[in-house]
Amino acid sequence: MLMYDIIKKKRDNQSLSKEEIDFFVKGYVDKTIPDYQAAALMMAIFFNGMTDDETVNLTLAMSKSGDTVDLSGISGIKVDKHSTGGVGDKTTLIIAPIVASLGVKVAKMSGRGLGHTGGTIDKLESIKGFKTTIEKEKFFEIVNKIGVSVIGQSGNLAPADKMLYALRDVTATVDCIPLIVSSIMSKKLASGSDAIVLDVKCGSGAFMKNLQDAKTLAKSMVNIGKMAGKKMVALITDMSVPLGTAIGNSLEIIEAVDILNGCGDKKLTEVCIELSANMLYLSGKGDLELCKDLARQSILDKSAFNTFCLMVESQGGDSNCLRDTNLFTKSAYRYEVLSKNNGYIKAINAEKYGMASLILGAGRAKKEDDIDYSAGIIMNKTVGDYVKVGECIATLHTNQSERFNEANKLVLSSIEFSDKKVAENTVILDRIV
Amino acid sequence: MLMYDIIKKKRDNQSLSKEEIDFFVKGYVDKTIPDYQAAALMMAIFFNGMTDDETVNLTLAMSKSGDTVDLSGISGIKVDKHSTGGVGDKTTLIIAPIVASLGVKVAKMSGRGLGHTGGTIDKLESIKGFKTTIEKEKFFEIVNKIGVSVIGQSGNLAPADKMLYALRDVTATVDCIPLIVSSIMSKKLASGSDAIVLDVKCGSGAFMKNLQDAKTLAKSMVNIGKMAGKKMVALITDMSVPLGTAIGNSLEIIEAVDILNGCGDKKLTEVCIELSANMLYLSGKGDLELCKDLARQSILDKSAFNTFCLMVESQGGDSNCLRDTNLFTKSAYRYEVLSKNNGYIKAINAEKYGMASLILGAGRAKKEDDIDYSAGIIMNKTVGDYVKVGECIATLHTNQSERFNEANKLVLSSIEFSDKKVAENTVILDRIV
Repeated sequence: MLMYDIIKKKRDNQSLSKEEIDFFVKGYVDKTIPDYQAAALMMAIFFNGMTDDETVNLTLAMSKSGDTVDLSGISGIKVDKHSTGGVGDKTTLIIAPIVASLGVKVAKMSGRGLGHTGGTIDKLESIKGFKTTIEKEKFFEIVNKIGVSVIGQSGNLAPADKMLYALRDVTATVDCIPLIVSSIMSKKLASGSDAIVLDVKCGSGAFMKNLQDAKTLAKSMVNIGKMAGKKMVALITDMSVPLGTAIGNSLEIIEAVDILNGCGDKKLTEVCIELSANMLYLSGKGDLELCKDLARQSILDKSAFNTFCLMVESQGGDSNCLRDTNLFTKSAYRYEVLSKNNGYIKAINAEKYGMASLILGAGRAKKEDDIDYSAGIIMNKTVGDYVKVGECIATLHTNQSERFNEANKLVLSSIEFSDKKVAENTVILDRIV
Repeated sequence: MLMYDIIKKKRDNQSLSKEEIDFFVKGYVDKTIPDYQAAALMMAIFFNGMTDDETVNLTLAMSKSGDTVDLSGISGIKVDKHSTGGVGDKTTLIIAPIVASLGVKVAKMSGRGLGHTGGTIDKLESIKGFKTTIEKEKFFEIVNKIGVSVIGQSGNLAPADKMLYALRDVTATVDCIPLIVSSIMSKKLASGSDAIVLDVKCGSGAFMKNLQDAKTLAKSMVNIGKMAGKKMVALITDMSVPLGTAIGNSLEIIEAVDILNGCGDKKLTEVCIELSANMLYLSGKGDLELCKDLARQSILDKSAFNTFCLMVESQGGDSNCLRDTNLFTKSAYRYEVLSKNNGYIKAINAEKYGMASLILGAGRAKKEDDIDYSAGIIMNKTVGDYVKVGECIATLHTNQSERFNEANKLVLSSIEFSDKKVAENTVILDRIV
C-alpha cells in the first residue's frame, strides 16, 4: 500500500477503505508517512469530505493509536461530557458533581487549555493542593467511592489526533466537519465511557458561528459515536455571549460553587441542568423531565455541592475555599470597564471577551505559557441589560496592570448597543439524538 | 505575511497576489516555509486552480528563484523548443541542427531523463567523448560560431520548480494544468531564449492522454509565455505510438542521423519539419510554408547533418560514429519479439513500450541509476502495418539477458490487433498561437 495512492484516491473523490485509513494513521504515528503527505491528504479531505464509514474508521484508528482507557474497573455506567469549547465554559465543574451525586459515574479525563482561559484541569488547579495527575488505581477508587474524578489527559491518548491536529492547525485544514468529528470522538472513544453527552457551542464565542454548522457537526458526532457503539446525545447551546458571568480560572471555580449552591447565573444553571439531565437520561435514570428534576433537586439538597467538595478533598485539594470562596487568592489589580454609551446591550462578542481575559493573564497564548489563576473578567452586564454612561460593564482582574488598557478597549469594542429593548438569548438551541 | 493565510486564501478560492506568490516561492526555496505547508497549498491549487495572473506570477517567481541565463552574449534571436515528453522523442537532436543550419541560434539547456529512456543530454552522452558540462563562455562561443549547442541544465536553474516538482510527485498534485505550466515555463524563462516552440505530446505515451487536455495545456503555456514577453507557438503532436522507430539512447542518435540524412521514418521527419519551421517562423524567417521548405532543404543539402557533426565535434564528441553509425557500441543481446497474432496493428500503447525499454536498461527508475546507452527497442512494425504470426514486431536490445522475458511480454501486451485495415495516425493534431 502506498500513501501516494491513498492521497490520489481521496483527491479523486473516492472513498478510502478501512485498511487504507489504518495504514495512514499507523504510518503517520510511526513517522514512516511524512507530514507533507499527511498535509496533502488533509487538504484533499477538506475538499472532498469523508463518508460516515470513512469518518468512523478514521476515528477508530486514531482512538487506538495510543493508550486506551479501560474503565471496567469502575462499576456501573460511565458517562462523559464533551464541550466543543467556548468562553467562560465551566460546565464540567458543575455537572460532573450533579451527575455523580445521583449515582452515575463520571471518570473524566480533561485537557489543558490553549486560548482564552485554561481548560477544566487548569481551573481545578487554581484550588490549593488539587492534584490532576493521579495513578489509575487511585482514580478508579475515587470514582467508585465518590462517583466522580477529573484528572489530566494521559500524554499518549490518541497521539494520532494530537499530531494531525497540530498539522491541520498550520495548513488551514481545521474547519472540516469529518476531521473535527474524528478529532473529538477519537479522544472520547479512547477515554472509555459508555455514554457521551456533547455540548456543541454555537455563536460568536465558539468555533461554530451559526446554527446550521453547529447542527451538522452535532449530527455527525452523534452518528459516529453511535456507529462506534456509544450512547449519544448532543445539545447545541448558545455561545453568542460568554457562559455565565465569570471568565478566568479561580473566578470560574467560584462561579461553579455559586451555581452548585443554587445562587448563580440563571442561564448557566439552565445549561448545566440540561446537560446533567441528558447524562442521567443516557444512564437510564428515567425520562428527560424526571432527570431534570433530579438534577435540580441535587442542587437544592446540596448533594451536588457536597460531592464536589468530596472530589476536591480526595484529589488533595483544599475544600475550605469552596465553602468560603473569599479564601481564593485575589488578583493584585481590579479595574472597572465603564460604559461610554447609554442603551440596551444588543450583542456581546464572546470571542473578544475571551481575548481580553487572555491578555489579562487567564490563558495561554503558547503551550509553555504560565497561567495566572486569579486573572480574568467578571461580567457585570450582559445582553438585554440597560446600561448608562459611566456604569460598570465588567470588572477586569489582573496581576499585570499594564495589560488593563488593551483589555479595556477590547471589552468596550465587543459590545453592541441598541436604543430598543432587546430579547434575551435562548440558551438551548437544539437537541440531537 | 503568513503562509497559513496564503493556504487559507487559496483553499477558499481567492486569487493570490504577486506579493503572496513571491513570499511563498522565496520562503519555500530558503526553507522557512516547510514542505507540509507547501503540500497543502499545492493540493488547494489542485482543487481551485489558478488564474492566468497567478500562473504568470508563480512562473516568474520560480524562474527567478535561482540562476537565470543571460543569452545576450549570443547574437541574434535565440529560439528554444520544449517537448512535454514522450516515448522515443528525439526531436531536439534533429531540429536544433536544422534550425541552426539556417542561421537561427539554439542555445539549449536540457535535462537528464527520469523514466523510459534518458533525456536529450543522456542520448548525446552516448556519443563517445561528448561533453554536456561546458563553461558558459565556451557554450556562447559554440552557439555564436556553429549556431547550436546543447548542454546540461545548470544545477540551480529554477530550484523552486525542482523542489516543488519533487513534492508534487509524492503528494498526487502533479496533474494540475497551472502547476504543469508554471513548472515548464519557469525553466524556459530562466533559460533566456526570445522565442519558444512547445511540442505538447498527446496520446497513450504522453502525460496528456486526450486532445482536449493537451489543448488546454498548450493554450495556457502559450498564454503564460506571451504574458512573460516571449514569442510562442505550440504544436500538439501525436504520442499514441512511440515517435519514430527507435527507443533508447544511442539507438535514437542513430535514428536522428537517419532523419538528418533524409532517410528516416516519415512521420518523425514530418514532426521535425513542422517544429523546425515554427522555430524559424518565430525567428522571422518568413511564413510557415517558406520555413517548411527551408527546413526540408537543409536536410536535402546536408547542411543540417553537417551542423550536427560540427556541434558534436565542438563539444568533444566523436563525429565519426555519426558518419558511420556502426561504430556505436552494440548491446550484447538482441531479441526479436514475434507476433502471436495475424492482423493489422490498430493501436500501440506507447507507455508500455517505454516501460519495456526502461526494463531493458535504457532509462532510470531512480535518479541514481546508471543508463545503458546501447539498450532499447527498434520497432519493426507500427500502427497500420499487417503482421503475421511469427513475424518480428520489434527488436529488443539489452545487456541484461534476464530482462528479455518481461520486456517481451510488455511489448506483446501493448499491441491491439484488428481484422480490418487501419487508418494511419495524424501526426500534427493542432497548432496553438
